Amino acid sequence: MNDPRSAVADAARARLDAKTKPRGSLGRLEDLAVRISEIRGSATPGRLRAAVVVAAADHGIAARGVSAYPQEVTGQMLANFEAGGAAICVLSRLAGAELRVFDLGVGAGTADMTAGPAMTREQARDCLDRGRLVASDLAAEGFGIVALGEMGIGNTTSASALTAALLSVEPEVVCGPGTGLDATGIRHKIEMVRRALAANELGEPEAVLAALGGFEIAFLAGLAIGAAERRLVVLLDGFITGAAALAADRIRPGTSSAMVAGHRSPEPGHVLVLEALRLDPLLDLELRLGEGSGAALALPIVHASLAILDEMATFESAGVTDAGR
Amino acid sequence: MNDPRSAVADAARARLDAKTKPRGSLGRLEDLAVRISEIRGSATPGRLRAAVVVAAADHGIAARGVSAYPQEVTGQMLANFEAGGAAICVLSRLAGAELRVFDLGVGAGTADMTAGPAMTREQARDCLDRGRLVASDLAAEGFGIVALGEMGIGNTTSASALTAALLSVEPEVVCGPGTGLDATGIRHKIEMVRRALAANELGEPEAVLAALGGFEIAFLAGLAIGAAERRLVVLLDGFITGAAALAADRIRPGTSSAMVAGHRSPEPGHVLVLEALRLDPLLDLELRLGEGSGAALALPIVHASLAILDEMATFESAGVTDAGR
Repeated sequence: MNDPRSAVADAARARLDAKTKPRGSLGRLEDLAVRISEIRGSATPGRLRAAVVVAAADHGIAARGVSAYPQEVTGQMLANFEAGGAAICVLSRLAGAELRVFDLGVGAGTADMTAGPAMTREQARDCLDRGRLVASDLAAEGFGIVALGEMGIGNTTSASALTAALLSVEPEVVCGPGTGLDATGIRHKIEMVRRALAANELGEPEAVLAALGGFEIAFLAGLAIGAAERRLVVLLDGFITGAAALAADRIRPGTSSAMVAGHRSPEPGHVLVLEALRLDPLLDLELRLGEGSGAALALPIVHASLAILDEMATFESAGVTDAGR
Repeated sequence: MNDPRSAVADAARARLDAKTKPRGSLGRLEDLAVRISEIRGSATPGRLRAAVVVAAADHGIAARGVSAYPQEVTGQMLANFEAGGAAICVLSRLAGAELRVFDLGVGAGTADMTAGPAMTREQARDCLDRGRLVASDLAAEGFGIVALGEMGIGNTTSASALTAALLSVEPEVVCGPGTGLDATGIRHKIEMVRRALAANELGEPEAVLAALGGFEIAFLAGLAIGAAERRLVVLLDGFITGAAALAADRIRPGTSSAMVAGHRSPEPGHVLVLEALRLDPLLDLELRLGEGSGAALALPIVHASLAILDEMATFESAGVTDAGR
C-alpha cells in the first residue's frame, strides 16, 4: 500500500503483535493504539499530553423553555469551572489532563433560532476561527490530545436541530430528554427544532451551523478542524460535542479521521451522529451531563492503549514462547 | 430502614444529589460510588489504595491440548510479570495500583480433572486459606480495593467446568475460544469439560472447586471471601476471575456484595457468571487476555466515582441554581 496512513497502521499493528500477549487479545485497546498511531502519523506515538477544552455559551432558544434549568446556570457553572468544583474539574485532574475553559458568549448568547439564524455568518466564522486558533496553540504547547467539552443551557436543542439538518432526518428521531426533560418537555423540544428548521435557510454546512448552532458548538467545530490539521487526537464527549464534530466533518471532510469517541450518550441523536462519523465509543456509562465528562473518563483508556504500545515486553525480549496467533 | 447498608447508600446518594450536576446525570459513576460506599460501610469512603493481585498456576488439563499455548508459557509469563513487561504490569502502573504476583503452583500444577479431582480437598483448602490471608494482609496495609487477575495455561477450561457445575448448565453454553481456539479447539474443550464433570463427584461448592478448579482459582476465591470480610472492594477481571468469584459466593453466600465487575469478557460463560452474581461490568473493550487487564483498566473509573463523591462542589457551596431534578 502506498497510503501513508495504512503503512503507519501496519507498523503499529506489527509492534502490537510482537508483544507478550495473544494476537489481538487486548481487543479495542489495540485498535485504539493503531488509530492514534494513524492520527499522529507515527507507529511510536509515545505518551501524549492531554487538554480538556470546555466551551461555554448561552442560547437564545433557552428563553423558549427547552431546558429543565434556567439560563443563569450557564454563567454559574462557568464560575464553578473556574473554582474547580464541577465534575469536569475533578475528572480532568484525576486523568492528569489540563482543563481550559472558554467563554464564547455567556450572558450574551445567540439569537432565538426559531425566529431566524442563531448566529450571523460573521459570528459563526469568528467562533470557528477562535477554535482553530486554540488548536494551533495547543499543538504549539506540545499537547497531543484534545478532549472536547461544553456547557450551555439549551444546547441539546441546538445540537438536535443541527443533527437533524446535517443528516436530513426528522426532529422526532433526534430529540431526547437532554439533562432532565419529561415527555411533555421532549415534545416541546421537537416542536422548537421543527420551527428552527422551518425558520432558516439551510444551505451548505457552515450556513447550517450559523443558523442552528451555538457559539460554543461553532468554536468546538473549529477546534476539531484545527486539531485534525495539526494531527491532534480529538476525543469526543457526548451528543453536543458529537454535533460539533459532525459539523466540523461536513465543513472540512476528513476531520472525523482524527476523532475518537469517548462515551455513548443515551440521547437518541447521538447514535445517528456516531454512525455518520463511523465512531464507536469507548465507554457506555449512562452519563448525560456533558462538560466533557465522558471524554475525561475515557482518557485513561487512551493513555493505556499508548502505554501498551510503548512499554510492554516483546516475546523475544521476555523469552516467552509465541504460538503465533 | 434499619438495614445499615441501605442507610449508607441513602447517605451517599444524598451527597451525590447535592453536587453541581443534574440528579443522576453521572449515571453508572454515581451507582458505583453508592455501591462502594455500601461495601466500605461509609458514605465518605475517600480515596482508596488499590492492589492488583495476579495468581498464577499450571493445570493438569493443559496436557489435553485445550489451549493454543504450551504449558511452559505460564512460567515464562510469571517471569515477565516479575520483570514488569506484561500487559498487567503496564496497566497497573498506569492506574497507580500496586501489583502483587503469587505463584500458586507453576510447573507443579493440578492433576488432570478428566481423570479425577484436579486438587485434593486439602490442596483446595490451603489455596483458599492463602487467599484469605493475603486479603487480611492487604487490609492491614491500608488497601481499599483489590483487583483480581490470573495466569495459567488451560485455566479457561477449568473455569468453564467450574461454571457449568456451579450453575448446572451444559458445557456447550459455557465454552468459548479462550485466548485463541478455533471451532475444532472449542469442540475439544467442550468434550474435556464433559469428561471432567463425569469423572468427579460434585457435591457442595468447595468440593466442586477442588475437583474442577485450579490452584490460582481457589486462591482467588479465598481472596474474594477474605476481602469481602474486610470490606475491601473486589474488582473482577474477566471469565476466570468471574468463575473464582462465583465459587467464592457459593462457598460464602453474600461475598458477591463486595464485588464490582471490571470488564465484560467475550467468553460465553462470563455472561452466565455475571447474571448469577448480578453484576454489570464497567467496560466492554473486547479484551480476552486475562491477567487482570480488564480490572486494571476499570480502576480509573472506580477512582473517578469516589473523587466525584469527595471533590465536587455542592449547589450551595458553588452558588448554582438547583432545579431539583
